[in-house]
Amino acid sequence: MTQTSFPPTDASGPDLAGQPDQATVDLLGLLAYGELTAFERLATDARMSPTLGDKIALAAMAAAEFSHFQAICGELDRLGVDREHAMAPFIGPLTAFHNSTAPADWLESLVKAYVGDNIAADFYREIATRLPSPSRELVLNVLDDTGHAAFAIDRVRAAIEANPTVAGRLALWARRLVGEALTQAQRVGVDRDALTGLLVGVGDLDALAAIFNRLMAAHGRRMAALGLSA
Amino acid sequence: MTQTSFPPTDASGPDLAGQPDQATVDLLGLLAYGELTAFERLATDARMSPTLGDKIALAAMAAAEFSHFQAICGELDRLGVDREHAMAPFIGPLTAFHNSTAPADWLESLVKAYVGDNIAADFYREIATRLPSPSRELVLNVLDDTGHAAFAIDRVRAAIEANPTVAGRLALWARRLVGEALTQAQRVGVDRDALTGLLVGVGDLDALAAIFNRLMAAHGRRMAALGLSA
Repeated sequence: MTQTSFPPTDASGPDLAGQPDQATVDLLGLLAYGELTAFERLATDARMSPTLGDKIALAAMAAAEFSHFQAICGELDRLGVDREHAMAPFIGPLTAFHNSTAPADWLESLVKAYVGDNIAADFYREIATRLPSPSRELVLNVLDDTGHAAFAIDRVRAAIEANPTVAGRLALWARRLVGEALTQAQRVGVDRDALTGLLVGVGDLDALAAIFNRLMAAHGRRMAALGLSA
Repeated sequence: MTQTSFPPTDASGPDLAGQPDQATVDLLGLLAYGELTAFERLATDARMSPTLGDKIALAAMAAAEFSHFQAICGELDRLGVDREHAMAPFIGPLTAFHNSTAPADWLESLVKAYVGDNIAADFYREIATRLPSPSRELVLNVLDDTGHAAFAIDRVRAAIEANPTVAGRLALWARRLVGEALTQAQRVGVDRDALTGLLVGVGDLDALAAIFNRLMAAHGRRMAALGLSA
């Protein structure tokens, strides 16, 4: 369902009636449901942990995602927006993404948590810098790494060292994650004019290309950190 | 593996070397792993939630269990006890309990969260009152209800009202939960002399019978609150 469109130049502040703009509500709703599913996924993946220490580490990350979820819900409350209503448009795409990328084992779940979540976070950050305060600061704060990075890098590198053949499989897996994420991002973009407008409205095609290049460069650095070819 | 036994009269304080007594370490280890698995289970069950509101409610309870887990780990740290070592003896029995009582649907998971967790909590409370301070206060605080009760009662009663035939199935399910819990409690009791000693050491057979009667009476009240026959 297409939302009522509005000029991108309005996207950085409330409209004349003092209502929060649709782009802010959309980004908060998308992030809230993203954090809730990240919580569920990490908590479920914790069951695949090879050791008790790994299980505790993953459960702690899941709990951190839930506190992010609560922080975003607090911001939606402050803006007077119904939280479930704000999340509703993003349940379908996020569920489809997770259903099509269910990790087969512990290593795939680590790569997904690290590669998948960070490419999403980078994308959200590009949008968030264009939000009005204090939503902008809240979102940027929530997007800060919750310790996935060091943990995933350490475990994945150790696994590759122990058995170099897993690197090829995990590199393919990461490529599939990016492909599925782009598919769902496109689906969201088609449906949510306000959110897309926020991203497109700030510049021309060169600016969009620059955003895409930044995302891909950061993704390449993360793959290299894991010891995988991008 | 049977632990070194010690007289039950020593169970209420540190031994002569200033080490925490085995019963305290055992109860904290049992509770810590219990909270960690409760977290995992609630977070996994959240995926079965029929509505987004139910999902959020269950995820919030799961996050509360994880904060309990962290509180108990903090107490183990304070006592200078390795947390994973303290939890290790209880991984087998708790995993066996959860594997043999995997809920088939949303209602079974609610009954398990309410009936199963509370009968366990009542039992832990009976032991905890015999622990030295401040472990005693910490455990009693952690065992406080995290909102399961009102939520589960509301949802289960509504489901029975909508379809009275589910009451029989859920009553059978609750009986199976109690049976499996007793089986695993016995297994823990055989292996962990210190923990059993703490419970038995305080009194005679009459006192033990009184504890059992209190547990069963509280269980019966919870079943009645759900609208189920005990």
